Amino acid sequence: MKLTSLQEIGEFGLINELKLSATRQNASTQYGIGDDAAVIEPGKKQVVISTDMLVEGVHFDLTFCPLRHLGYKAVAVNVSDIAAMNATPTQILVSLAVGGRYSVEAIKELYDGIRIACENYKVDLVGGDTTSSNSGLIINVTAIGEANAEDVVYRNTAQVNDLVCVTGDLGAAFLGLQILEREKQAFMANPEMQPELEQKEYLVQRQLRPEARMDVIHELRELGVKPTSMIDISDGLASELFHICGQSGVGAAIYQDKLPADEQVLNTAEEFRIDPLTCILNGGEDYELLFTVKLSDFDKIKNHPDITILGKIVPKEEGLNLVTPSGNAYPLKAQGWEHFQQ
Amino acid sequence: MKLTSLQEIGEFGLINELKLSATRQNASTQYGIGDDAAVIEPGKKQVVISTDMLVEGVHFDLTFCPLRHLGYKAVAVNVSDIAAMNATPTQILVSLAVGGRYSVEAIKELYDGIRIACENYKVDLVGGDTTSSNSGLIINVTAIGEANAEDVVYRNTAQVNDLVCVTGDLGAAFLGLQILEREKQAFMANPEMQPELEQKEYLVQRQLRPEARMDVIHELRELGVKPTSMIDISDGLASELFHICGQSGVGAAIYQDKLPADEQVLNTAEEFRIDPLTCILNGGEDYELLFTVKLSDFDKIKNHPDITILGKIVPKEEGLNLVTPSGNAYPLKAQGWEHFQQ
Repeated sequence: MKLTSLQEIGEFGLINELKLSATRQNASTQYGIGDDAAVIEPGKKQVVISTDMLVEGVHFDLTFCPLRHLGYKAVAVNVSDIAAMNATPTQILVSLAVGGRYSVEAIKELYDGIRIACENYKVDLVGGDTTSSNSGLIINVTAIGEANAEDVVYRNTAQVNDLVCVTGDLGAAFLGLQILEREKQAFMANPEMQPELEQKEYLVQRQLRPEARMDVIHELRELGVKPTSMIDISDGLASELFHICGQSGVGAAIYQDKLPADEQVLNTAEEFRIDPLTCILNGGEDYELLFTVKLSDFDKIKNHPDITILGKIVPKEEGLNLVTPSGNAYPLKAQGWEHFQQ
Repeated sequence: MKLTSLQEIGEFGLINELKLSATRQNASTQYGIGDDAAVIEPGKKQVVISTDMLVEGVHFDLTFCPLRHLGYKAVAVNVSDIAAMNATPTQILVSLAVGGRYSVEAIKELYDGIRIACENYKVDLVGGDTTSSNSGLIINVTAIGEANAEDVVYRNTAQVNDLVCVTGDLGAAFLGLQILEREKQAFMANPEMQPELEQKEYLVQRQLRPEARMDVIHELRELGVKPTSMIDISDGLASELFHICGQSGVGAAIYQDKLPADEQVLNTAEEFRIDPLTCILNGGEDYELLFTVKLSDFDKIKNHPDITILGKIVPKEEGLNLVTPSGNAYPLKAQGWEHFQQ
């Protein structure tokens, strides 16, 4: 197959190629790609808006991250921010800087992933910018969502006695990255080798193609539960809990035996000689939701298969503690992913 | 002066440093930096939103572009997109990817420029993302504006017999870039030399620190003139006129003797042996507004010092032509800035 260079098609050509696949899914989308700006009509709703930049070599490694998954992930992590406000995602804008070594076909693969994510999360691609880069690939996604003012959930509104909850399970995306990096090293040492990914599929999938938990947002609405505070887990459970508690002026007690982890996390942590607790508390990129609910909502959520009640909010003076099965309390540490400190 | 490395302060530290300077200028700004997303309440207005990515080595060269000007320009070019929709800019989000060689002080210089632009254009910095980069500096700005639905001006609504108008003058930013690149070459050949910028100040300023023409947007409102179509000139007059005419299904006749240019443009084009007409028609980055108005608005704008009437919209069959003083018509060519074709 002959690949088309970006030089051949030019920026305007690329925009036209990409424009064709855009269809409108939200009533608030008045005008998308094709003018100086997109136009949105949110009616009486509030608009929530978030932006995230992914940089090649820092946030992703194209030796093991397929471009289609990367496009999907770039959208999912931004939708996750909208979910964490208890809002409904409606539009995205995508800026791309692309090195000359990329073909039009490669960029289309990336956009295929973006398009699939737009369909899954029912958001409209309404704008963006495409430019060249002297080095790697850079993707910036801005996500827009809408919510009634009374439904928006902030980080700074957790109250003492609220229950601390988390969706899904934790630590898998971090271990998925360890697996992929190990396989990359092995491949570079011996290009004939086959990757050893048996029993690791879940970990790899969680790293390469995370999902925003819009499903849980919709289910909480159906259950009549409005979280009292919420954040998505991009930097690790402990780090995010510090954000909620710090901004709300409260403490928290988290029970070690409640922490949700997949069996592959437990087995693989052992294989890598990492404490599984470290993966669960400090592994980033799971994009699950950490939230608090009123104690009176306990019955509504206690049997939800994707929600785990981890502990409770306590007065600020008690601090943030991990409580072991034997009842000892250890202060939590926020070891977020500090990209500048790598 | 001791400079602080980004490694010392970390991503969260940087966000906190930057957060302190954010003050709210718009009633629609409900919540800014500090949560998963910013929250905006536009009331009954429409929201317009645009995004632009600036890449080191492609869009700017830090050997001659001060970081403070760069920050200002990154905001101004996005505000210009909002202006081109006839909307009022209200919020921005800024994503930065920064190489390890930058100091915190350098990034603060950049943010100082961003902050000054926010104050000038009365927009709130409500969010963003700060990450590291393995190579240069990348800035992505998303600008948000608001307008009553009936006030939004698109590109695709120019009508036959409308007047074609432009703000300010053209070609200066392009020649400013030529000057700066010439001085850079001279400096690299002989670091003792002093830059020769006499009689070039206007050109250099137009390249390094362009302004969005919000002043004209406000004045047109006061005059009771709503453009029938509008676009901002980032890629050159000819290219933008092709966008308006192509999307509106019309042609245009532009009079050569009406094209507005500063004396420095005419003199410097000669010095560089470039046809001044090429600079005026195809030089990018002037960020002036190209718009059309109804013929009946002629009297309202004819004496405006910052608006030039260039020509008129004609039926599509007549094409896009430049009419010389002797009355000959030559087809215009759209030679936009194609970053992929450099």
